[in-house]
Amino acid sequence: MKDYKVIEVKESILADNDADAEALRQELKAEGTFLLNLMSSPGAGKTSTLVRTIAMLKDEFRIGVMEADIDSDVDARTISDTGARVIQIHTGGMCHLDADMTRQGIREFGTKDLDLVFLENVGNLVCPAEFDTGAAKNAMILSVPEGDDKPLKYPLMFQISDVVLVNKCDVLPVFDDFSKERVTERIRLRNPDCDIIFVSAKTGQGFDEWAAWLRREIRKNKQ
Amino acid sequence: MKDYKVIEVKESILADNDADAEALRQELKAEGTFLLNLMSSPGAGKTSTLVRTIAMLKDEFRIGVMEADIDSDVDARTISDTGARVIQIHTGGMCHLDADMTRQGIREFGTKDLDLVFLENVGNLVCPAEFDTGAAKNAMILSVPEGDDKPLKYPLMFQISDVVLVNKCDVLPVFDDFSKERVTERIRLRNPDCDIIFVSAKTGQGFDEWAAWLRREIRKNKQ
Repeated sequence: MKDYKVIEVKESILADNDADAEALRQELKAEGTFLLNLMSSPGAGKTSTLVRTIAMLKDEFRIGVMEADIDSDVDARTISDTGARVIQIHTGGMCHLDADMTRQGIREFGTKDLDLVFLENVGNLVCPAEFDTGAAKNAMILSVPEGDDKPLKYPLMFQISDVVLVNKCDVLPVFDDFSKERVTERIRLRNPDCDIIFVSAKTGQGFDEWAAWLRREIRKNKQ
Repeated sequence: MKDYKVIEVKESILADNDADAEALRQELKAEGTFLLNLMSSPGAGKTSTLVRTIAMLKDEFRIGVMEADIDSDVDARTISDTGARVIQIHTGGMCHLDADMTRQGIREFGTKDLDLVFLENVGNLVCPAEFDTGAAKNAMILSVPEGDDKPLKYPLMFQISDVVLVNKCDVLPVFDDFSKERVTERIRLRNPDCDIIFVSAKTGQGFDEWAAWLRREIRKNKQ
């Protein structure tokens, strides 16, 4: 049974996305809702990370997920099975969400009674990095099979991320050309301040640290 | 030693990219150069696939590689070690190449004496699918760790691809939720005519079939 709404968002006509994003960020903070913008390549594990995260935190926080996709709703179905409230946003072919598109989703979704809302952005390391969505924080997932050279090739994505989850760490023994030290150094090159957490959405490794990160940020957002 | 040129391409001002792409395709065919547009997510294995392909075919064909990236030249360095002629194209933040940007690269590179030119597009499953580059054929790489649901989520990319290489098949035993049958069925849903080849750029599995595909297309292009 499909128990989530699907909406088609329109491209923003606002010239100043940064100002609009800042306004949305302040509105959400005033309402006590922590919006996290989650980005990655296709297949890095955004949805499976969310499924495990929701299972860990659903008794502590009221959680919602906004799923952005070009035009499918595969992930919304998966997430709605967790019991979290979900809305599917279709970008109509657009490769990213801007602040106004995010706001259209937020208002349709109704987030005032939620503590934590994940915005699962379109799977893409280029375009989403260029548009501030109005989220309180940016998180990105880099998966081990993608290789440890990605911070060299997609600098902006790493530069704007407050936290990087290095996912699929359970397959590190198979992908033995991936070095945790090297990827850390390369992420730091782009962004000396960002938090780096090594996780596996499959085994749960590192999720205590990730949950602690979220608890801390949600608390700070309510202050 | 850096033995390749780096050029910055400008966004096209032409209104009709499709017509421009068709013109470029005809020019290249007249010159006997087969241009293959190679697309994938970040980290799916475009560069390692090219390294192995060049090693297999370099005695049969005169090969060049045009590396498109946001702003690094990590891959151009790797490819230039194979002995193939390489040019690095910087898109200045753009998430794709259009026909005019490809032409700028082609003309700067000089491809008249080449039989086979690979255009390694920006790692992205959304934007590159929307712009015809003028290549004779489109190839895409889907890697096993990304999951077998990608044809559902990025339909256009699969729809416009003449061949899909399913890469990293050496790790199929580890990613046991990836089904070859299911991915085949989902690719066929988008594109009943496209060729599907299961490969591993690491072990070489499937590369005989891939090399045969390229030989056949290069021969057809010269007719």
